[in-house]
Amino acid sequence: MITENHCIQLDQNDALATLRQQFALPPDTIYLDGNSLGAQPRAALDHAQHIIHQEWGTDLIKSWNTAGWFNRPLSIGNELAPLIGAQADEVAVTDSTSVNLFKAAAAALHLQRNTPAHAQRRIIVTERSNFPTDIYILEGLSHFLNDGYELRLVDQPADLHSAIDQDVALVVLTHVNYRTGYMFDMVELTAHCQAQGALVVWDLCHSAGAVPVDLHAANADFAIGCTYKYLNAGPGAPAFIWVPKKHQPHFTQPLTGWWAHQSPFEMQTNFKGAPDIRAALCGTQPIISLSLVSSGLAVFKQTTMAQIRTKSLALTDLFIQLVEERCADHPLQLETPREHAHRGSHVSFAHPHGYAIVQALIEHGVIGDYREPHIMRFGFTPLYTSFHEVWQAVDILKDILDHQKYDLNLEKNAVT
Amino acid sequence: MITENHCIQLDQNDALATLRQQFALPPDTIYLDGNSLGAQPRAALDHAQHIIHQEWGTDLIKSWNTAGWFNRPLSIGNELAPLIGAQADEVAVTDSTSVNLFKAAAAALHLQRNTPAHAQRRIIVTERSNFPTDIYILEGLSHFLNDGYELRLVDQPADLHSAIDQDVALVVLTHVNYRTGYMFDMVELTAHCQAQGALVVWDLCHSAGAVPVDLHAANADFAIGCTYKYLNAGPGAPAFIWVPKKHQPHFTQPLTGWWAHQSPFEMQTNFKGAPDIRAALCGTQPIISLSLVSSGLAVFKQTTMAQIRTKSLALTDLFIQLVEERCADHPLQLETPREHAHRGSHVSFAHPHGYAIVQALIEHGVIGDYREPHIMRFGFTPLYTSFHEVWQAVDILKDILDHQKYDLNLEKNAVT
Repeated sequence: MITENHCIQLDQNDALATLRQQFALPPDTIYLDGNSLGAQPRAALDHAQHIIHQEWGTDLIKSWNTAGWFNRPLSIGNELAPLIGAQADEVAVTDSTSVNLFKAAAAALHLQRNTPAHAQRRIIVTERSNFPTDIYILEGLSHFLNDGYELRLVDQPADLHSAIDQDVALVVLTHVNYRTGYMFDMVELTAHCQAQGALVVWDLCHSAGAVPVDLHAANADFAIGCTYKYLNAGPGAPAFIWVPKKHQPHFTQPLTGWWAHQSPFEMQTNFKGAPDIRAALCGTQPIISLSLVSSGLAVFKQTTMAQIRTKSLALTDLFIQLVEERCADHPLQLETPREHAHRGSHVSFAHPHGYAIVQALIEHGVIGDYREPHIMRFGFTPLYTSFHEVWQAVDILKDILDHQKYDLNLEKNAVT
Repeated sequence: MITENHCIQLDQNDALATLRQQFALPPDTIYLDGNSLGAQPRAALDHAQHIIHQEWGTDLIKSWNTAGWFNRPLSIGNELAPLIGAQADEVAVTDSTSVNLFKAAAAALHLQRNTPAHAQRRIIVTERSNFPTDIYILEGLSHFLNDGYELRLVDQPADLHSAIDQDVALVVLTHVNYRTGYMFDMVELTAHCQAQGALVVWDLCHSAGAVPVDLHAANADFAIGCTYKYLNAGPGAPAFIWVPKKHQPHFTQPLTGWWAHQSPFEMQTNFKGAPDIRAALCGTQPIISLSLVSSGLAVFKQTTMAQIRTKSLALTDLFIQLVEERCADHPLQLETPREHAHRGSHVSFAHPHGYAIVQALIEHGVIGDYREPHIMRFGFTPLYTSFHEVWQAVDILKDILDHQKYDLNLEKNAVT
């Protein structure tokens, strides 16, 4: 049996332990929801003050040039690039994940329509258990293209191979599933898609900053993802889109705002798309929220994704083991793969009263979250989650379960 | 001849003069570029600190409910609504102007295709002198729909009536032109569009907070606009989209992200659009930049658009008169209408050396901007521009022109 002392010992041996000081975390709280909203880097406060007071308030319009606002979606994209195996000038931090998926998927379908052997393909594959916005965006895109596109929703990871056949134009997969934490083998699946002539968009919302990602090693086509989860960029901070050099010359997407123009300030009356990553931009970005993405990324420069991954697996292994040892009498069902190769950085357990239990945990200072149906989700963020917190969280969970300290009459909130 | 003392007197009689104190403006600067980037409300700094420290850093994920993050695009939309003659629950503050135009234009074309008498219309009318992103977005949308849509670019306001005929599905007009400051008669033009069976989207980028707008009085169809100009919401702050109640039940646009779903947290695998303004949303918004829109709007609650308009016209009249009196020897060409009914809140003069002169003005502390070709733009923001500043700006302009204090060899910056 694992002891509390053992967990305390793990913290003492943790090379990343000191990074926690760089985050403002509330007292008496065990925050296991960095997979939904990352914690606040302390530096973000001064950074915001600088942007508001100096760049906006004092330098005003000049900051578009002097502070580099105009280039910021790309300069921050370059800061993010190493975390996902992207090269320089391949990543833009801009818009929302949903909007970026729309762009990437539209661009991929455009490429296929212009490839004679693939021009008639009309199937788009994704998982039924994908985060709904991905499915909705693909639905919206298909509907508006009004050209026979159909979604093929796959029920199980094991069914993906056979579902991706030579009728498929596009595959959109979330690398780490938002509910279960299941992680796909990006290299293997990308190769399969491409062998079938399909293009693939990887959604990295639960991967970027959570697990090592090497888009170039996988020879992936496109990727998108958010920055406000493991990258700690702030609530709703702009998302990213990756367009590798190989696809940039032919990248064209319908949201052809002026930021995607090759010469935006010449005020031409015809759109001429930039031949580079700028083609993935659209309109003016929210500079304050965008800038704070840098405060989140700054912490990653002090470690490596390999170190983060090692600690992440140790944290999730510990949590699974402790729950299974200490809460064995309760109907908890592990939804997350035990195999490291298929596990992201969060762990989900199903329980028939999952919603009420999560609310009770929150009241007792353990912040996890709930996802339909029955899923209790716990995110582990190696930059600030300690091993002792894992012990304490399971201790509180055990107490809530053992003594039924949860209210089955709770109404579900809009966001949980 | 107008005297400096007369201008100082105008400030003493200005009911809005005290509002200037609510803005952080740099010393020794006459800021005439609020039509491009509004000044920083002093309150924005504390507001940002509260959001970062309390809502994000301390309350973390709970803030989606407790701080109202989830509803913020709509709650701030409701704060903005009175400035444009919108009703409650008709405005969302979200995404960029370009993305919102894409949504509004797509929704309008969808409505037309579902109106049997209009289903074959394939012409989209806009002005050749419209801000380019509007033209580019309409181009991108037409291309993407791949169904015969064509842009009809109109050269002169006087040609609009004849260009809007019964082949036209959609008209997209910017209420106040970004270069000339020409303002359309929204009531008359909307009526003409509708008499021809066309729907109309009004772009209010240079109108919201600058001139009185009454979308309902005009019986308009859709509107979009930005918040970072006259609304002083901060660099690149999210834009707005107006969908009146009459169009909400049938509003459908291609960017069907989860925020547009009627039950986003049920995680359904089929998109069912919300029957209300939420249908104009897409993905998660940048909460910090979004929230600061409120700091900008708070100042407007202390006055009325009628008061703002009175001062705006007094400022632009004064500027035109002073330039024409004091710089009469120079080849300056007024590009902005003299008639009040057709003037927004900025004034443009063309000069063959416009770019170099604007740079010299900036060096001398007068911040205006330059737009191709040859246009020097000066924005007048009644909330913080004083009459004496108008005098001083013209004084400096006269000095620069009289003594040719500008450098014709300057290279153009990316953003000016």
